Amino acid sequence: MHDLLDVAYGRRPADTIITGGTLVNVLTGEIYPAEIAISGTRIAAVGPGLPRGENTTIIDAKGGYLVPGLIDGHIHIECSKLSVTSFANLVVPFGTTSVVSGLDQILVAEGLDGVRRALDEAAETSMRIWWGAPAKAPYTVPQSTVGHTFGPGEHRIAHEWPECVGIWETVQEMVEHGDPAVLEALELAHQRRLPIFGCAPLSDARRIAGLAAAGIRLDHESYSHEEMLEKLRQGIYAIVRESSVAHFLEENIQVVSKVGARRVAFCTDDVHAADVLAGGHVDKLVRMAIKAGVDPVTAIQMATVNCAEMYRIDDLVGSIAPGRFADVLIVDSLEDFRIREVVAGGKPVARDGRMITPAVPPARGAVQPFPVKTVTADDLALRSGETEVTVLTLNFTDQVFVRKRRDVTLPVVDGIVEPSVEHDALLVTVVERYGKNGNMPVAMVSGMGLRKGAIATSAAPDDNNVICVGASRADMAVAINEVVRLGGGQVIVVDGEVVASLQLPVAGIVSDISADEMAIQEEHLDTLAREMGCQLPAPLMYLFFLSITAIPDYAVTDLGLVDCVKLEVVEVIQ
Amino acid sequence: MHDLLDVAYGRRPADTIITGGTLVNVLTGEIYPAEIAISGTRIAAVGPGLPRGENTTIIDAKGGYLVPGLIDGHIHIECSKLSVTSFANLVVPFGTTSVVSGLDQILVAEGLDGVRRALDEAAETSMRIWWGAPAKAPYTVPQSTVGHTFGPGEHRIAHEWPECVGIWETVQEMVEHGDPAVLEALELAHQRRLPIFGCAPLSDARRIAGLAAAGIRLDHESYSHEEMLEKLRQGIYAIVRESSVAHFLEENIQVVSKVGARRVAFCTDDVHAADVLAGGHVDKLVRMAIKAGVDPVTAIQMATVNCAEMYRIDDLVGSIAPGRFADVLIVDSLEDFRIREVVAGGKPVARDGRMITPAVPPARGAVQPFPVKTVTADDLALRSGETEVTVLTLNFTDQVFVRKRRDVTLPVVDGIVEPSVEHDALLVTVVERYGKNGNMPVAMVSGMGLRKGAIATSAAPDDNNVICVGASRADMAVAINEVVRLGGGQVIVVDGEVVASLQLPVAGIVSDISADEMAIQEEHLDTLAREMGCQLPAPLMYLFFLSITAIPDYAVTDLGLVDCVKLEVVEVIQ
Repeated sequence: MHDLLDVAYGRRPADTIITGGTLVNVLTGEIYPAEIAISGTRIAAVGPGLPRGENTTIIDAKGGYLVPGLIDGHIHIECSKLSVTSFANLVVPFGTTSVVSGLDQILVAEGLDGVRRALDEAAETSMRIWWGAPAKAPYTVPQSTVGHTFGPGEHRIAHEWPECVGIWETVQEMVEHGDPAVLEALELAHQRRLPIFGCAPLSDARRIAGLAAAGIRLDHESYSHEEMLEKLRQGIYAIVRESSVAHFLEENIQVVSKVGARRVAFCTDDVHAADVLAGGHVDKLVRMAIKAGVDPVTAIQMATVNCAEMYRIDDLVGSIAPGRFADVLIVDSLEDFRIREVVAGGKPVARDGRMITPAVPPARGAVQPFPVKTVTADDLALRSGETEVTVLTLNFTDQVFVRKRRDVTLPVVDGIVEPSVEHDALLVTVVERYGKNGNMPVAMVSGMGLRKGAIATSAAPDDNNVICVGASRADMAVAINEVVRLGGGQVIVVDGEVVASLQLPVAGIVSDISADEMAIQEEHLDTLAREMGCQLPAPLMYLFFLSITAIPDYAVTDLGLVDCVKLEVVEVIQ
Repeated sequence: MHDLLDVAYGRRPADTIITGGTLVNVLTGEIYPAEIAISGTRIAAVGPGLPRGENTTIIDAKGGYLVPGLIDGHIHIECSKLSVTSFANLVVPFGTTSVVSGLDQILVAEGLDGVRRALDEAAETSMRIWWGAPAKAPYTVPQSTVGHTFGPGEHRIAHEWPECVGIWETVQEMVEHGDPAVLEALELAHQRRLPIFGCAPLSDARRIAGLAAAGIRLDHESYSHEEMLEKLRQGIYAIVRESSVAHFLEENIQVVSKVGARRVAFCTDDVHAADVLAGGHVDKLVRMAIKAGVDPVTAIQMATVNCAEMYRIDDLVGSIAPGRFADVLIVDSLEDFRIREVVAGGKPVARDGRMITPAVPPARGAVQPFPVKTVTADDLALRSGETEVTVLTLNFTDQVFVRKRRDVTLPVVDGIVEPSVEHDALLVTVVERYGKNGNMPVAMVSGMGLRKGAIATSAAPDDNNVICVGASRADMAVAINEVVRLGGGQVIVVDGEVVASLQLPVAGIVSDISADEMAIQEEHLDTLAREMGCQLPAPLMYLFFLSITAIPDYAVTDLGLVDCVKLEVVEVIQ
């Protein structure tokens, strides 16, 4: 602080000065030439002709525009299956220097200690994580088994952390139905002056009133610009989402391009490495907004100061002004908006789409297999005393977030209902992987199309147990045992052989491999799955989301087949 | 909270519905017809056709516009000499339902207990006080004697209070010169996520950088719109001030009318009852802004949501949206902007410029005289062993915030330098009134013009000791003793007789009389002072500010004559 003030007041020369650039001042909307003086990791002064000393490092912007580092307003980092370090190395070259994240998958797998490690890991990268403490965890109803739950007791600890900036993903039903643990967490947040982030897809005026009345400050889930405008009118800040699986920018940007609303930001929610590598990250959303008719400075404000204001972190990021972190992008054209160079925490860190020196992940220690006993084909038998049964199968559709009921009549052979390619009924199980109870219920799915083998994944929110679907019980057992041995991963087995595996050893859900490598491996897994007959557009992704009980109409967790409307476990055999 | 959510979700009818109005939605800038449903003191829902029950009270807006209650972004309530209750009864009919205040005069007189009482008092009125804990108290340098000082230890307590929304009046010199107590308070605020309010008159780019780097979030002290724009560019929110003694709106509004800046609000800082009664309060500033070319909705945003955002209280006030306090104004014309009716905390409280039922002040208990021994003319003698002396007098000018040096040569009679009307040299003293040390230094002033008698006041920031100026030591003693007996007040004495007195028994600085009565008494005191020869435009106001060491070039405190440039006590007799 003293060093920073000394540079600001001109009592000491700057460590670094960025010169030769034109400032995009998102605070006033003005554009004018200015230099930036940096002390340590912070901006100390902004203006013309700032004093330099003999040890001042000069960064020449060469006529480029100086833009604040971009902020992703809502991202599940772990859904990329990349570790915090690998994710940072992916998105920082595209100009993302801040993300708001709940780290909710890390949380259920490794608890607050795991979140602490992830935040410490982020501090060694060029990407800041502004952490929202999840409203509750897990989100599954009925509550499935996780490594660590998160409730009011944990909130009391988390709220004291300086990285904690609010309450993450407060699902609208939790508020409307008055979930006592969630309401208690909201009250704690209110006492600590922490903002509350909502999650209100397909909401309406009545329910939006309820959320606003409960103190929900912002939301990223509007399915139409009318819905988003209603939230804005009722005092809820809005975040336009454009993820790898949900494309809403073109629709929602109309609140800005047509209505002129100001309290709007951007987020990417879930992104795949391949999509970011091909199209960019938050910078892509800025380009899309400009293409949709939004003024470039307004679009940049959405990606910077607007987001910082709604999260109440505008004193630290989101603008180029004294006291803020020295996260500055150099951009040659505001219309084209491609990031030439990234300065983060006062240092040049990326240039022309690549990290200058990629961040190095922390030492992880030896991989620990999951504490799960060896699974056999016998463990996965769906048994019946009848000769023929009607099975309620979870039927995948071409929309990843819609799963319907399909009843299938199947024969019982030697007391067992086998998976049937002919009847489009595959077996599925979710193996509890934290060593708590050994749950391993068996159910059935339709619409996937596998003609042989098995696919398993331990990356699987909200609880990240091991999900496995297969046309063969034996192959399923091999796949599950391999995921367990790897300490987490995604595995494909055909005829008893592991034909592909992506190890995810960090918390059993993410990896330190590079985004390029992740994109290759993901494509490889999906290609293999398609070759095995899978007709879904993104086989592993469908598996990934299978345990989320917030997706209608059915889910499978370690408790069994879940009716997501009644929110209860139902019998597989009718 | 449960009741509020029940009404928001439509599970219970509203207590009150405001119907028949057109909503000015400051969140989106839109204007459209809407009803407002209220539960208790809060807004539960806003929209068309809200459900009512048989016990729902209906407020008919009769075609008026519905505007959020106005916010004064920086006000020293005590400078009006009105108690919190009387001040609320004055400004609420003009639409001011929230004020940000430091209560710094109450604080030095009665400590945190006094502030607590003032906040509890406010809670019984229709005016919310959002309290900023003063960066330090007193502000005088060298530190004069006060009832209660305020430093980091008191900050630790104050920051836990729900009414505390930040750090009040952080003077730029305290930051630039690194006052340790102030820097510690700022660090405490940072840890508690509390914003820091600045005080940076006549600043420049270098010093603004220092303030922004220190985390100063906002400022109300710009003397030109260029200075204000520089603050905005460097990330400091700006508040346009138009007080009874400092008129800056016409100049500073240009950052909005010409530059289009958004992060700008209004404040009145110091106001006199007569000015508010004649011209209005924050509503007057809205009218002035509109007259200066600002769009009415933008001007209303400045008086509401912009201010709420910069103070981070926008979840509670500043807009008409669910969860906020039901502070709603009914206005017939947005251009003319006169407040027809005021709803505060869900209840109609004022109509056509008058409180429906004025708030009643709390029982105060018996008035306590100040713990000061009886003062005699002898105590006020300026003594010298010479026959003639040169006296450094504090010379008033026609600007209340400029006081110059004037050297006067005076005779010494019987070892005493008497006040001299002929030489324009009156005696002045500041009597320490908290019973701590009995300080009562004597100095001299010029430029006031009193030809006889004495004037005394205990309302006198920053320390609120008893200031007395006179042409007669005997009259001064009478005046001081009367102020002491009254337990605070303003007194005029001529020829040994108290000819006028305004009792200020609350903390020795404010009164529960009505604003109308205050305006009459203030005018009476000033008129009498003028009749006694005083040529200053506002005699009592000049006296009032005499102890503030932040006003160049001289001040008088209970320590003596202070050189406000060197910030040290200087000898009166040269």
